[in-house]
Amino acid sequence: MKDYLDLADLGDDRLEAVLSLAKHLEAHPLGEALRGRTVGLLFMNPSVRTLSSMQAAVMQQGGQAFVVTPGSGSWKMETRNGAVMDGEAAEHVREAIPVLAQYADLLGVRCFAEGKDLTTDLADGLIRTMAGLCPKPFMNLESARAHPCQALGDWKTLDDLAIPRRGGRFVLSWAWHPKALPYAVPASALEMAVRRGMDVTILRPDGFSLPDEIMERARAIASRTGASLRETADRAEGMDGAQALYAKSWAAPAFYGRPVEEASFRAPLRDEWCVRESWFEPAEAHAKFLHCLPVRRNVKVADEVLDGPRSAVIRQAGNRMHVQKALLIELLGGHAR
Amino acid sequence: MKDYLDLADLGDDRLEAVLSLAKHLEAHPLGEALRGRTVGLLFMNPSVRTLSSMQAAVMQQGGQAFVVTPGSGSWKMETRNGAVMDGEAAEHVREAIPVLAQYADLLGVRCFAEGKDLTTDLADGLIRTMAGLCPKPFMNLESARAHPCQALGDWKTLDDLAIPRRGGRFVLSWAWHPKALPYAVPASALEMAVRRGMDVTILRPDGFSLPDEIMERARAIASRTGASLRETADRAEGMDGAQALYAKSWAAPAFYGRPVEEASFRAPLRDEWCVRESWFEPAEAHAKFLHCLPVRRNVKVADEVLDGPRSAVIRQAGNRMHVQKALLIELLGGHAR
Amino acid sequence: MKDYLDLADLGDDRLEAVLSLAKHLEAHPLGEALRGRTVGLLFMNPSVRTLSSMQAAVMQQGGQAFVVTPGSGSWKMETRNGAVMDGEAAEHVREAIPVLAQYADLLGVRCFAEGKDLTTDLADGLIRTMAGLCPKPFMNLESARAHPCQALGDWKTLDDLAIPRRGGRFVLSWAWHPKALPYAVPASALEMAVRRGMDVTILRPDGFSLPDEIMERARAIASRTGASLRETADRAEGMDGAQALYAKSWAAPAFYGRPVEEASFRAPLRDEWCVRESWFEPAEAHAKFLHCLPVRRNVKVADEVLDGPRSAVIRQAGNRMHVQKALLIELLGGHAR
Repeated sequence: MKDYLDLADLGDDRLEAVLSLAKHLEAHPLGEALRGRTVGLLFMNPSVRTLSSMQAAVMQQGGQAFVVTPGSGSWKMETRNGAVMDGEAAEHVREAIPVLAQYADLLGVRCFAEGKDLTTDLADGLIRTMAGLCPKPFMNLESARAHPCQALGDWKTLDDLAIPRRGGRFVLSWAWHPKALPYAVPASALEMAVRRGMDVTILRPDGFSLPDEIMERARAIASRTGASLRETADRAEGMDGAQALYAKSWAAPAFYGRPVEEASFRAPLRDEWCVRESWFEPAEAHAKFLHCLPVRRNVKVADEVLDGPRSAVIRQAGNRMHVQKALLIELLGGHAR
Repeated sequence: MKDYLDLADLGDDRLEAVLSLAKHLEAHPLGEALRGRTVGLLFMNPSVRTLSSMQAAVMQQGGQAFVVTPGSGSWKMETRNGAVMDGEAAEHVREAIPVLAQYADLLGVRCFAEGKDLTTDLADGLIRTMAGLCPKPFMNLESARAHPCQALGDWKTLDDLAIPRRGGRFVLSWAWHPKALPYAVPASALEMAVRRGMDVTILRPDGFSLPDEIMERARAIASRTGASLRETADRAEGMDGAQALYAKSWAAPAFYGRPVEEASFRAPLRDEWCVRESWFEPAEAHAKFLHCLPVRRNVKVADEVLDGPRSAVIRQAGNRMHVQKALLIELLGGHAR
Repeated sequence: MKDYLDLADLGDDRLEAVLSLAKHLEAHPLGEALRGRTVGLLFMNPSVRTLSSMQAAVMQQGGQAFVVTPGSGSWKMETRNGAVMDGEAAEHVREAIPVLAQYADLLGVRCFAEGKDLTTDLADGLIRTMAGLCPKPFMNLESARAHPCQALGDWKTLDDLAIPRRGGRFVLSWAWHPKALPYAVPASALEMAVRRGMDVTILRPDGFSLPDEIMERARAIASRTGASLRETADRAEGMDGAQALYAKSWAAPAFYGRPVEEASFRAPLRDEWCVRESWFEPAEAHAKFLHCLPVRRNVKVADEVLDGPRSAVIRQAGNRMHVQKALLIELLGGHAR
């Protein structure tokens, strides 16, 4: 594996090996597997967890990292092929990626969806173009359609919580948010859950089905792993017997790229689609609440859930570092044990 | 000591031990006391000295640091409990602090006063809340009411300059500044001076007495250490026999949270309250000038003072690194010698 | 050599030694020459290559670096002597430089031209003032009139490409850009080429001769090294037999500091002065294209050139790290082999 762009880049055996290594590294965080290795981190979008957990992961394994944040201390970057660059962006990723690759043994890049054209964003072409421009190993730190480090951390979190892979009951629920958000996290959470072979329910208001391309891909994985996949707008039905509720907001596909109309369509859902403790009544007694963070308190989810015993969000974030250490070692061919 | 939130967190014996270690580390800057340690630095407000001296301190002792700056490459953060987060802030410190604590062995956080409500800011509740959310050691890198790394560096600076603890003559003077500034630095400088047992004068225009809570706390410390504490608006009287003049600006408490009115009240003081060489005529011949930096030249203090032999501001800033190294070692339980 | 402010700071013997060490370090990137060394990097202006290559250079030689970016997480800085600081800038470089120098063994500083007064910018007084305020070794990471790390990396690039020093045919061409850019890069590229003893042509539209001071300095160097130096506005004549075309934009000196008028004067040149493959018809068959990056694609240079076999821009950027490692070792007196 040269590039980690998507959970699918890890075949079943490597996925198990990386999870196993992540578990080992959680117990033994310090090591020398990345001694002498330089990791370059390019953040085209804001970050807290990824920014800090990637640096900590590298440093705790003896390596070193540098960070480039275009627009905040660095030149704004153009991403479109053939662009006539007479606007704000002074640098093109066609130069930036191969240049940075010369200073590092691995690049990690965050580059969110543009939010204009659904087909373009779902094709995830930009992160793939950047990986193609990079002669060194490359990690996707959240792209238009995938957040595969999050997906792997979430997998480990479900394992940690002893929520079964085959047959575990996983609900991916839409939640209200003031902005039309991209599909990277819900697509990756869905892929993770079906790859685990779980019984997956997508709970969302009418008009908020995930795009067909994402659903078809999930169904294809489910058919291989034995996962089940259904959708509903009925909360009681959706939450029935749930072991884990994964909340996330995303844009209504029919209005993609038209934020004003999308906002009008989304507006009436605000109060009903904020996750509250009452949502869990039909669920298993100790059902867990997951979210990738950052989360808008009392908008997407009430304090009572986030501050209560169901919340696994801190553990999820902690697992980001453990799985990223394992991924870095996998990609750089180090030997951690 | 798990947390260093205030100079008072260091009991007399530990204070002496940290100062002694800082002096040793000034002479022997490199070491391995923080080998394998990761320090996370969260800057909610701008920084030059703290940002760089903390990183240098960690690295020169064999550790490593990462930096998170909300609003500049990272998500803006909410700090209020119970907030309905439908505004600019995408992340709450209630998640951010425990998340970052998982990636680090110690967190250092800068979070200035909000400047709206005096009682709230003087209670310094936010930094205490954040420390409480952090299961790891925690350092206050300037909060609403305290800048304890500065206070400790200033203590060492006065020691370096052979200005006596008991009976040394210390003047904390208000100076003009275009903005209504918080009380963190003057409160910490005052606490430091009375803790040393000095003869302390606060020189300030009418209406610029420090808030009662700060003064009462200083008087309580003075009564234990034998310090004296008085206030005056008369410069000749205030500077009489001074060995150290510590300049700082702060808001008029009566107008706290009303910046327009405060600015009108402050405006006429501009020329008179810019520190000049002539201020030192009633002082001791070699009286020193101190300031925490950054300082607005020719607004708060004239070039002639900053560029002259009285100025100890560069030494003060240098001591920041030495005392922070010692504090990090104290908090992380390393062994520096 | 305490400071590296300009290529001229390297005498002939040290220049050869640094280039030789850079070549060695390209083949053997990891080392311990900077073990225990702290490098402080102050970026008053945006950066991608310099920011990341400096950090990578330091870290791969066992040292450590911290970064301060005024205005983006750090206080905005004043640079003018005698300024009355009642505006945006909270800190003066007269404090910042000596303060940061206490935390580091070497400072590197980027500080672009102000773009207001030609004589002031050409005197490069600010970077010299900052170096003078710094008791430690100091590296110019691009100032008003010089980008000497770029110049040294470009020298190595021409060596790598086997383009002869004495008699090699070097064209420095103006190219269109939406803004009036400073002279640091063209002045340093010109100094580099004449120092190598090349046959140098400056290709530029009428009104875009480089300022006299830059030309006189280049002629003085040329007279010592045997370089030739001519100017032309005729592309066919300028490109005749060229082995390397170095493209860069710069402001029309007659309009310096008057950007609106300069923009009107520059506007009609847009289409003609975008480097295209056709420019190379009169050149040597395998003539190379150089640019310091970042470059605005299809504005300064067409995709066909940047993506074709002539382009040496990625190699140029890669060499930045190698020469900076060698410079750091030269300045810090380490031993790399």
